[in-house]
Amino acid sequence: MTPAPRTLTEAATDTAGVIALLERGRTLATPGLRSAVARLAPPMDTVAAYHFGWIDAQGRPAAGDGGKAVRPALALLSAEAAGAAPETGVPGAVAVELVHNFSLLHDDLMDGDEQRRHRDTVWKVHGPAQAILVGDALFALAGEVLLEPGTAEAARAARRLTLASRKLIDGQAQDISYEHREKVTVAECLEMEGNKTGALLACASSIGAVLGGADDAAADALEAYGYHLGLAFQAVDDLLGIWGDPEATGKRTWSDLRQRKKSLPVVAALAGGGPASRRLAELLAADAAKSQREFEDFSEEEFAARAALIEEAGGREWTAQEARRRHATALEALEGVDMPAGVRERFAALADFVVVREG
Amino acid sequence: MTPAPRTLTEAATDTAGVIALLERGRTLATPGLRSAVARLAPPMDTVAAYHFGWIDAQGRPAAGDGGKAVRPALALLSAEAAGAAPETGVPGAVAVELVHNFSLLHDDLMDGDEQRRHRDTVWKVHGPAQAILVGDALFALAGEVLLEPGTAEAARAARRLTLASRKLIDGQAQDISYEHREKVTVAECLEMEGNKTGALLACASSIGAVLGGADDAAADALEAYGYHLGLAFQAVDDLLGIWGDPEATGKRTWSDLRQRKKSLPVVAALAGGGPASRRLAELLAADAAKSQREFEDFSEEEFAARAALIEEAGGREWTAQEARRRHATALEALEGVDMPAGVRERFAALADFVVVREG
Repeated sequence: MTPAPRTLTEAATDTAGVIALLERGRTLATPGLRSAVARLAPPMDTVAAYHFGWIDAQGRPAAGDGGKAVRPALALLSAEAAGAAPETGVPGAVAVELVHNFSLLHDDLMDGDEQRRHRDTVWKVHGPAQAILVGDALFALAGEVLLEPGTAEAARAARRLTLASRKLIDGQAQDISYEHREKVTVAECLEMEGNKTGALLACASSIGAVLGGADDAAADALEAYGYHLGLAFQAVDDLLGIWGDPEATGKRTWSDLRQRKKSLPVVAALAGGGPASRRLAELLAADAAKSQREFEDFSEEEFAARAALIEEAGGREWTAQEARRRHATALEALEGVDMPAGVRERFAALADFVVVREG
Repeated sequence: MTPAPRTLTEAATDTAGVIALLERGRTLATPGLRSAVARLAPPMDTVAAYHFGWIDAQGRPAAGDGGKAVRPALALLSAEAAGAAPETGVPGAVAVELVHNFSLLHDDLMDGDEQRRHRDTVWKVHGPAQAILVGDALFALAGEVLLEPGTAEAARAARRLTLASRKLIDGQAQDISYEHREKVTVAECLEMEGNKTGALLACASSIGAVLGGADDAAADALEAYGYHLGLAFQAVDDLLGIWGDPEATGKRTWSDLRQRKKSLPVVAALAGGGPASRRLAELLAADAAKSQREFEDFSEEEFAARAALIEEAGGREWTAQEARRRHATALEALEGVDMPAGVRERFAALADFVVVREG
């Protein structure tokens, strides 16, 4: 008799284990990140240090929030999945984190986002040119760090990272182009999120294994885990972008609604087709005619009304289910991969964490 | 008895040979560039095609000016230097050209340059976000194209290209920071130009050889050729930026003076220390207090007066000599490299072309 499938609620208990995994990723990746950033010509080194939260806007040392560091944790775990020491995954962890931060720097500028991790974004503090330059520099450093050992494994890892990076860029291009379109399908939204979030988490989940000598089949399965994990992560992010607690997310209330983002709950609600779905469509069509300034000045109640319609039309529930579906698919992807004892459980705990988080 | 050193004037005669080399580079690299660009998600494919001059701003096919394509020509020649077929250098030619164009897209946006190759720049036509995105995408494609064959040579080439790319970014960072500084030394200016122009020409001049299996010593010597060629190229560019014919350069008269660029002729003139040098320093200090708009509205005569002072202070002559010195050093760097008959002569002809060009 096969055991009953492990459910998310049963599983989401190993918080201490996840915190330890994230902490390990941060501890092992940070020296590599710091030494990579130290290679930059001034003032890029300072700007990058600000971005990573190591110094404040005045250049004073800070113990800032460098993000959850899910990607480094995954990279080290994936090295272990291939039977290698977690340290084997470190160049991969550093490279993936550099690519992730390259995309944050550029996306914040393109999207006009003024806040990230509870602080002013780089373009806001140091100007657009530094945001572009330092983003470029982090992207270049990723390849540099990864290719440094000069091994065949490093070259395979670098190739996979390059492909993931391009998907990341494709995803941002799609995200921007969807903003100007009246209608976006659920499939298009999922494709965009798969590129923007799935691709790099897929790479993070396999890069350590590739550096540890895993074959393509194992690397591909780990990628599939990371890809679906990314979609689960994004579904949760989209829920938090509307209904998240500003204290926990570091964003304003109704953040994604204020930006008129066609995120999963919105496109799913619009695809529903019932009366609430039609009322929402009419409201959003009218909103689209307004200027961004005019729109941002809406009252809390006006945003709350839109959020209520999205929920009534089923967009909230569909997205929550989607997060659970992707969570399950991510874990299934690991089934065919042979890995040392305990590693699979930690991949599962990380997946649980991603789906139950509140910020 | 050793023959008298070959001088630039004697040498600069093989125009037909150089045109054929550039044409070969363009012919062999363009299909790779086009297929790389075709991989991009819309609208990035269209924006990139506009940037390369393949279509106009309305999307109609164009036979635009894609630049001189010196880098692809060098990449193919460097494959031949290693005894390989020129085709061996093609992925290197494509990758270097992608990195070069990534930097043009981002630099034009950061510098606010509205024209390139006699056409509106990408940010001007398609907006800043597309200039950032497509630049990022071309940079990612460079790694992708280069690492695709999965060989050890490809990985070595990719590592060298990553290092060169980071120098390119360092150079742009220095260029921007120098604009805000009152005093820039000749050494700082040369370092910046070595990063901004030398590093990628160095990579172009060696990447084909690396793909063709050259050892590190040969690759380093070819890099040195390309590095000094880049500095010669840049010295000529700096002369053209002040005294160039707008018809030939595609830029406005006194282009670099209008942008208050601390280019080689300017910093060399300021370093001179004579009466003209002091008068120039006073004038530029007064200029620095003016707004960019106020400054751009200067009459032709006012710019001509500045150019005349730079010349009187020796900045023009020093820069012309620097171009000749770097040209000579570039050719010397090749002396220790064993290469098939005819290849050395073609490297020399390309170097001559770079130094005697007028646009």
